[in-house]
Amino acid sequence: MRNLKLIVAYDGTEFHGWQSQPGLSTVQGELETALAKLFNHPVDVNGSGRTDAGVHARGQVANVQTIRTMATGSVLKGSNGLLPEGIRVLHVEDVDETFHARLSAKSKTYEYHIWRKYIVSPFLCRYVYKYPYPINSAAVDDAGRRLLGIHDFTSFCSKDTVIENRVRTIFDIHWRRTDDEWIFSITGSGFLQRMVRTIVGTLLYVGQERLLPDCIPAILDARDRNLAGPAAPAKGLHLVDVDY
Amino acid sequence: MRNLKLIVAYDGTEFHGWQSQPGLSTVQGELETALAKLFNHPVDVNGSGRTDAGVHARGQVANVQTIRTMATGSVLKGSNGLLPEGIRVLHVEDVDETFHARLSAKSKTYEYHIWRKYIVSPFLCRYVYKYPYPINSAAVDDAGRRLLGIHDFTSFCSKDTVIENRVRTIFDIHWRRTDDEWIFSITGSGFLQRMVRTIVGTLLYVGQERLLPDCIPAILDARDRNLAGPAAPAKGLHLVDVDY
Repeated sequence: MRNLKLIVAYDGTEFHGWQSQPGLSTVQGELETALAKLFNHPVDVNGSGRTDAGVHARGQVANVQTIRTMATGSVLKGSNGLLPEGIRVLHVEDVDETFHARLSAKSKTYEYHIWRKYIVSPFLCRYVYKYPYPINSAAVDDAGRRLLGIHDFTSFCSKDTVIENRVRTIFDIHWRRTDDEWIFSITGSGFLQRMVRTIVGTLLYVGQERLLPDCIPAILDARDRNLAGPAAPAKGLHLVDVDY
Repeated sequence: MRNLKLIVAYDGTEFHGWQSQPGLSTVQGELETALAKLFNHPVDVNGSGRTDAGVHARGQVANVQTIRTMATGSVLKGSNGLLPEGIRVLHVEDVDETFHARLSAKSKTYEYHIWRKYIVSPFLCRYVYKYPYPINSAAVDDAGRRLLGIHDFTSFCSKDTVIENRVRTIFDIHWRRTDDEWIFSITGSGFLQRMVRTIVGTLLYVGQERLLPDCIPAILDARDRNLAGPAAPAKGLHLVDVDY
């Protein structure tokens, strides 16, 4: 079997998340439908991870196996011709049969976009979270640094998380700030359900001075979701890159 | 009566054009509903001109009369609180009672966005027209120059146009070109129904070498809509500025 790696972008507003669900339009479902039609055989599309409804991707990675020999350029063109406009395959390449989009991933980078003005352009409103209130940026930076490294992130993931091992490594956290927009960037070995959104929500609590930056280690140690802040809304979150 | 000038942006994808229509969500209709609620009296919102379904605006101008004395900042905040996210009031100011958004307009600038690659980002697909094929840009520039000045634009407007006087002045036409995107910019005294889209469609015909640039004066002189090219799709068109 031939193994293809796909890089995929999507506007999460228009789909019920990544994972296939009967009767609902999902990114994985739309990809499987389009590729099954293109290859004329059923396919399973493995994503690097699930994204929730409303979460966007600029560089989601998936792999799919096929018995067809068509050129990668034809897969690119053919799949985009069959997909809704809200999902685009940006790149297709042949990879080793051992490549698995989820299991082979070394790190992922997410961005979270916070709009700092009262008025959000109608062209951006689906991609940013509006938060035009004061934020103590030094406190946010201080708190962010305390999340770097290897931690058990039980306090920072959904209570519905079924995975037992919640230890993840955060390699990098930084912010790019303009007057209009603050963009939070986080790179880690992997992320649990709602983890990035809960980190952002908690950092905003710190920025609002409802939590002190030095509470972060205690919240991590407690392994109790109730201690962290609320998850920030899905629409500000973008999966930008997966590294292998 | 107090007269307020509004600058308005909207994503045309989500509305049935500018003009109020019973039972349909239109930009004018949504503005009138929101402002009537804010002012607690019925209002008429005059736009600088109608935009078709799917056409976007970054700087549409409207005026509205009210008996209320609330601060312009409160009108800005209050109206945005009542409007759908796809319409934003960007600016509110008091103007002379003689100001009328349509009748007082001196010039308007539209942009038309042409995407030059085969793959359009899901974040841009509602705002650009994908045309990744060869275009003779020198011919397009030559043809564009022949539209400058005062002309009868009967050949370049919808056959349904009811306005008798189709003489308009084009002050400026230019293109901004990158590898990914070509942006057409046109400034004129006013534009007839579908006029910008028909100009763009005709310039693309010239770029495809289906028409010679020096046919433009003959098409203008003929005053016959059949001689010009097809109207380019609505979604690439953006009203960017109205000057007074």
